[in-house]
Amino acid sequence: MKNPLFIKVHETINNRLERGEYKPGEKLPSIRSLATELNVHRLTVFKAYQLLKENGKVEVKDKSGYYAKGESSILTDLDYPIVTSYIHKSHLSEIHRVHVEFQFSQAVIDPDLLPNQYTSSSAKKVLDLYPKVLSTYSTVQGDRELRESLANYFYEKQKQYITADDVLITTGSQQAIDLIARTFVRNGDHVLIERPTYSPAIDMFRELGARLLPVNITPDGYDMEQLEQFMKEKKPVLFYLNPTFQNPTGYTVPDNQRKQLANLAEKYRVFILEDDPFRDIYFEKKPPLPLFTYDVHGYCLYVRSFSKYIAPGLRISAILCRQPLMEQLLASKSLADNGTPLLNQKMFLHYYASERLQKHIEKLRIALELRKAAMESALEGEDFYWETPDGGLNLWVQIPDSIRMEELLAACLEQSLSFVPGTICDPLKEKENWIRLSYSYLNEKKIVKGIQLFKDILSSLK
Amino acid sequence: MKNPLFIKVHETINNRLERGEYKPGEKLPSIRSLATELNVHRLTVFKAYQLLKENGKVEVKDKSGYYAKGESSILTDLDYPIVTSYIHKSHLSEIHRVHVEFQFSQAVIDPDLLPNQYTSSSAKKVLDLYPKVLSTYSTVQGDRELRESLANYFYEKQKQYITADDVLITTGSQQAIDLIARTFVRNGDHVLIERPTYSPAIDMFRELGARLLPVNITPDGYDMEQLEQFMKEKKPVLFYLNPTFQNPTGYTVPDNQRKQLANLAEKYRVFILEDDPFRDIYFEKKPPLPLFTYDVHGYCLYVRSFSKYIAPGLRISAILCRQPLMEQLLASKSLADNGTPLLNQKMFLHYYASERLQKHIEKLRIALELRKAAMESALEGEDFYWETPDGGLNLWVQIPDSIRMEELLAACLEQSLSFVPGTICDPLKEKENWIRLSYSYLNEKKIVKGIQLFKDILSSLK
Repeated sequence: MKNPLFIKVHETINNRLERGEYKPGEKLPSIRSLATELNVHRLTVFKAYQLLKENGKVEVKDKSGYYAKGESSILTDLDYPIVTSYIHKSHLSEIHRVHVEFQFSQAVIDPDLLPNQYTSSSAKKVLDLYPKVLSTYSTVQGDRELRESLANYFYEKQKQYITADDVLITTGSQQAIDLIARTFVRNGDHVLIERPTYSPAIDMFRELGARLLPVNITPDGYDMEQLEQFMKEKKPVLFYLNPTFQNPTGYTVPDNQRKQLANLAEKYRVFILEDDPFRDIYFEKKPPLPLFTYDVHGYCLYVRSFSKYIAPGLRISAILCRQPLMEQLLASKSLADNGTPLLNQKMFLHYYASERLQKHIEKLRIALELRKAAMESALEGEDFYWETPDGGLNLWVQIPDSIRMEELLAACLEQSLSFVPGTICDPLKEKENWIRLSYSYLNEKKIVKGIQLFKDILSSLK
Repeated sequence: MKNPLFIKVHETINNRLERGEYKPGEKLPSIRSLATELNVHRLTVFKAYQLLKENGKVEVKDKSGYYAKGESSILTDLDYPIVTSYIHKSHLSEIHRVHVEFQFSQAVIDPDLLPNQYTSSSAKKVLDLYPKVLSTYSTVQGDRELRESLANYFYEKQKQYITADDVLITTGSQQAIDLIARTFVRNGDHVLIERPTYSPAIDMFRELGARLLPVNITPDGYDMEQLEQFMKEKKPVLFYLNPTFQNPTGYTVPDNQRKQLANLAEKYRVFILEDDPFRDIYFEKKPPLPLFTYDVHGYCLYVRSFSKYIAPGLRISAILCRQPLMEQLLASKSLADNGTPLLNQKMFLHYYASERLQKHIEKLRIALELRKAAMESALEGEDFYWETPDGGLNLWVQIPDSIRMEELLAACLEQSLSFVPGTICDPLKEKENWIRLSYSYLNEKKIVKGIQLFKDILSSLK
């Protein structure tokens, strides 16, 4: 922690180099202009450039300035030691920061598919119903009325025998996963993670210094022998999984594996972090019950997000788990933000408990299935491979081997089209010729136009 | 991380023992009943009890069961090594979980003092103004419109030359402090902290494995020599401070010390985390400018909470800092929750930018000053000592040495009155005969009645 400022400036420039903002051979900003931009002393920038030079990232040419060196890359090595958060980069959020016309990278639902007028008027009713809701804090665990309502919901829909005490309300599922990770994972712990997986989870566990054990997910689920082997030998503390319409693949882990996993978790004392954001977005038939339903020993922490398809602006998710774990999570939640805003919880409660919600979800399923179909037919006729998902928001598509992914991503972003490169979703940073395309944000017409553009860009790179 | 379940059960029981739920000599629940309550196997409870026995916390009597041993205590040792989060306890939040009639422990503002009708109708207008606000995610950094508005506000009110890029919106100031701590503090780092201080900050830095260096705060500010000595010798990474109407003391650090500190921070490369939640709650004259205003080198991270006295239900706060630090914070915020709910930001923006707000704050100042006066005159005539604060929500009161604090707290909670014991606010866990009394939650009548009850309880213990 010596010299924090120049190390931070160093990281800022290094991030830009890795993002490809400065191409190899390109001249970097002068020390003076960078000092002005970053609001630091020129000496600080000088030191940062010196460090970049030592690390072979930049070179000095004839005293005319600093130039970017080597290849640009958004990838890091799996085994790169996580020593400080300065080297942490949430890759996915960096792609999302680019505004594009053809947005296939974010698995979010088109606001036009959501019943905005109805949610607004429902929200207004909440303001009348609880006149002091804007002046009142929530408890750390969350509004009891909402937790009781959710406990009923989970009992009815998913055969989960829980009470309001087993429910913790969080500000979105990202927070839920983060809370669980920071509560139960320590530096050096082994963590099982699907391959590929939700990319911010990789960043998060790495940030905590975890050692990741990748478990392949296929259309048939996991290799259960490999999984048990890992549990036996490496004694992982936790398995992070998203077994239903998995992100990014769309695959669903079969029922029998869920039961097996619940038993393995108990046998090897491994916590199960079951992330379940897409359960309600099924197309033909309902998915298997959550793994949590089969967990009788209290090893499973179930994260359920609703707000993605109900009211993303509210950011309401829930963690379900048994008592001894809940106590620990409450301590973390108390430090993290002292409780999710009460307003959002009450608004969610009243909207989600309404009849209108069920109708909305039914319509939404149809709309999303149509968009998926539009994307699938637009993709046809090329050398692509994918499995049709039974639910969720994404296609996981294999593209020809010959394409260099970084080049493709750069070309697409330049032409205002975004996708998620498979490497980002892979704890091993391989999966070079896979990409995730979300069909939830654009309407059919735009999807068709965008996929055509994508094909054109791809052809131009062959 | 072996045997996680029984260790967790152990912690659950241990927490109850420390909270005094089981008194010394009292019989603990049977293994069978605890197993049912915690939904774990009986063997797990058995192992947990064995561990408690080994640690001298419980004893076995004639095979009739387990009994609590020794003294109950809510205190822990400063040097207790933080190895896992299981031992983490947010003491303050535990006191807050108890519902009492005379609530002097939480520094929150009486909802009746807040303009609930106006905030509600302002909130409804926001729903009309942004019809898709409930369906839209915020960016990680926060709504640009709000950040620009805040940048103007800080420029006009506090002479802080910042842009929207230097502002990060958080879900309350607890999250702001937590984000900064997890981004910049690593296991083993030294952290300067005021003594006494905001108690969750102690928990938070300990949870990260920081070594705390307590800096006394007095009505005249800090001992600047001691502070510089610490910086020189211990090379702390950060100083967490709340220099304006400090929590819990109400003291304000003078202007000249703020300027000095900004320079020391640069000289010794120490980050300054300036927590400033009470700035607008002054009684006679405005407080000195924030330390951040004097920071030209980019070492200060300024945390400003508004929502406490504007609309606590919204939970909106802001971090101000310069670019290289902001990049790191954004990565953490992205992992923590991907951005504060947009709805809350827009509602805050429109209410806080209204003329009505200024009028509200003026009235609020008067109301709080009256409550403070009511509490002060009710306290008179006993052997109490306190400094009259010029702002904020708390009195920091010295009570007679002869009183045993734990006994007092237990007796008060039993009679439905709560306060914060000074030990909780002290990184050294001393300050045995100091307490924090908040005058912001109850009206004058209740304050007078509650303080009388407090005096009666105190007399009964003498």
